[in-house]
Amino acid sequence: MEVKVLKNILSANDELAERNRQLLEGKGVFAVNIMSSPGAGKTSLILETIKRLKDKLKIGVVEGDVSSSIDADKISQQKVPVIQINTDGGCHLDANMASSALNNLPLGEVELLFIENVGNLICPAGFRLGEHKKAVLASVPEGDDKPYKYPAMFQIADVVLVNKIDLLPYLQFDIKGFSKAVKALNQNAEIFQISCTTGEGIEDWISWVLANVHPSTP
Amino acid sequence: MEVKVLKNILSANDELAERNRQLLEGKGVFAVNIMSSPGAGKTSLILETIKRLKDKLKIGVVEGDVSSSIDADKISQQKVPVIQINTDGGCHLDANMASSALNNLPLGEVELLFIENVGNLICPAGFRLGEHKKAVLASVPEGDDKPYKYPAMFQIADVVLVNKIDLLPYLQFDIKGFSKAVKALNQNAEIFQISCTTGEGIEDWISWVLANVHPSTP
Repeated sequence: MEVKVLKNILSANDELAERNRQLLEGKGVFAVNIMSSPGAGKTSLILETIKRLKDKLKIGVVEGDVSSSIDADKISQQKVPVIQINTDGGCHLDANMASSALNNLPLGEVELLFIENVGNLICPAGFRLGEHKKAVLASVPEGDDKPYKYPAMFQIADVVLVNKIDLLPYLQFDIKGFSKAVKALNQNAEIFQISCTTGEGIEDWISWVLANVHPSTP
Repeated sequence: MEVKVLKNILSANDELAERNRQLLEGKGVFAVNIMSSPGAGKTSLILETIKRLKDKLKIGVVEGDVSSSIDADKISQQKVPVIQINTDGGCHLDANMASSALNNLPLGEVELLFIENVGNLICPAGFRLGEHKKAVLASVPEGDDKPYKYPAMFQIADVVLVNKIDLLPYLQFDIKGFSKAVKALNQNAEIFQISCTTGEGIEDWISWVLANVHPSTP
């Protein structure tokens, strides 16, 4: 009897992620999955980006949290469409949760979508949501050894943002050593140093966002 | 036919945790499971505790990390027995991992055992290891909203340590609001404010440790 050989089957999550991606592209939405430890500044980064870009771009946000709608409440004050996903104990977003959120957003009115993942430097790295780019925040007070301890997250990052650089005078953090460790895991990762509190470095991130939302035609 | 009704069966993890607990008690070891986000100061707390107590108590350490032996290397410089567990991507320690570590420690020479969990404010909350007490660190730069966003971790904590209070002058952190949120989830949690950098408040934690390792006879 003939043996059926099935090749290149996507996992259920990857298949759903691919469908999310197609939905987003059909609507002309560029999506960024934002990941970090708890409290590294994901929501602050999104808020700072909205303040600088809301007159240039139509922005939407998906907020992922184990519990509460604290972050979505902050975002909604900026008058952009936002959906809160509560995972009820779940440690990461997955493509199915993202799909539900996308179905509840006015995608026709969105050009740039931020998907803020659950605060966790491990599990979210393993689940594609359909995003175009992955941004990982590291925070100066967490220490400079995180790429060694949580390599998967830094391996998949398209861009790494070192946040809270305003605290560098009060802490030991070897920014060169950190960047070297990230590059050793992931040569292509772009690294920006920022402070959402003082605004330092945010313009580099904004330039990256604009270049990716509307890439210059070759 | 008679229907068998099985009651009070522990999960595989809880059963192993119970065995670990019995092993520890047989050897007279008091064990604390230390949990937090990445970079909140678990290793620093263990180091500061060793420095203050190593002449009074025999201390051992289990270090849990996704990758690397950075933390175990730091601990071993203090000349206390230490075992590093690498989870290879796993987001928490479980009782089986803890069991392997216990089998590789000279438990007869240990009175106080710290088990440093993987840096993650979600998943470790669901897995007993056999410990007597659970200590959860929160870090001032993470922000004061963490009990709302990660309630399970604060619900199971016996003691909550708010670390990096030396950074309070440079950050917005409502310590009263934070404590109130913790107490709303978990009335019995003790809360200490500490700085592993300046040493402030560490003596309260040391007193807690000593009172628990050698509880006064009633």
